[in-house]
Amino acid sequence: MDLRSKIRDIKDFPKEGIIFKDITTLLKDGDAFKCAVDKIIQDLKEKDVDIIVGPEARGFLMGTPVAYGLGVGFVPVRKPGKLPGETVKFEYDLEYGTDSLEIHKDSIKPGQRVAIVDDLLATGGTMGATAKLIEKLGGKVVAMEFLIELEFLNGRENLKDYYVNSLIKY
Amino acid sequence: MDLRSKIRDIKDFPKEGIIFKDITTLLKDGDAFKCAVDKIIQDLKEKDVDIIVGPEARGFLMGTPVAYGLGVGFVPVRKPGKLPGETVKFEYDLEYGTDSLEIHKDSIKPGQRVAIVDDLLATGGTMGATAKLIEKLGGKVVAMEFLIELEFLNGRENLKDYYVNSLIKY
Repeated sequence: MDLRSKIRDIKDFPKEGIIFKDITTLLKDGDAFKCAVDKIIQDLKEKDVDIIVGPEARGFLMGTPVAYGLGVGFVPVRKPGKLPGETVKFEYDLEYGTDSLEIHKDSIKPGQRVAIVDDLLATGGTMGATAKLIEKLGGKVVAMEFLIELEFLNGRENLKDYYVNSLIKY
Repeated sequence: MDLRSKIRDIKDFPKEGIIFKDITTLLKDGDAFKCAVDKIIQDLKEKDVDIIVGPEARGFLMGTPVAYGLGVGFVPVRKPGKLPGETVKFEYDLEYGTDSLEIHKDSIKPGQRVAIVDDLLATGGTMGATAKLIEKLGGKVVAMEFLIELEFLNGRENLKDYYVNSLIKY
């Protein structure tokens, strides 16, 4: 299936000059959604994954069906203050200022093999921070899976210590 | 499986006096997560569902694996400004003030049979607003599915025109 044809371009979102890759047109198409999830599951089959991690909110959309299909658990990574239990935090740099992400302290056991799933690889900032959180807890990041990769932003360069896979490249 | 034993109580979150039902302890347990998703899928099997809708962000966690398992698409409902395409909005009352939710205008086709999936039924405000959005687009809400129901808040009363199912009741 041509997954690329299911992605919609939205001009000037969230701000002028940006062409936003809208995945909701893929998600609402049952066959395309199943095909995308199955391709990620297939890519993870031999990686012996114990658990899937996904950053909010769009990482939840692809990450939970992948976890369900593999028969493993799912751990959410969220903005500060959203997770109710005890967390660890990682702060990372943005173009202007910083941002932070949190994970529950007891969510990953030392030695667990973790795959991170998100919708889009841009500069790799969110994914890199998510990996750091997992490593703080003693987990091993065995794969990073994306629905879309914006190759012109060179996000892979920032994630070069990891295995990275994406389904649709621009 | 005793799904209830997988839910964790967090005292005073998000504010003092509230006992928060934390579903992340269920999600990270692959068997419990699969069991919960499968129970919802089972309940929807004879409802001839065309598409699943889930409100952000925790509705994404249960809704997308249900959609994947049923082989249908998923439509996100989000806070204002988060969806990139043209949307319709529904404003609803909270204890103090109002809140709004949006859905993409082209996400549901008139006549489609829709099931809404969310993590928790409290007063039913979010779920009722989500149903209104679907009906604005001409969709038919055939089921509302929850992982948890707080029965003492009588949310079902506010949703009495709909079929409501929940897996864990308090």
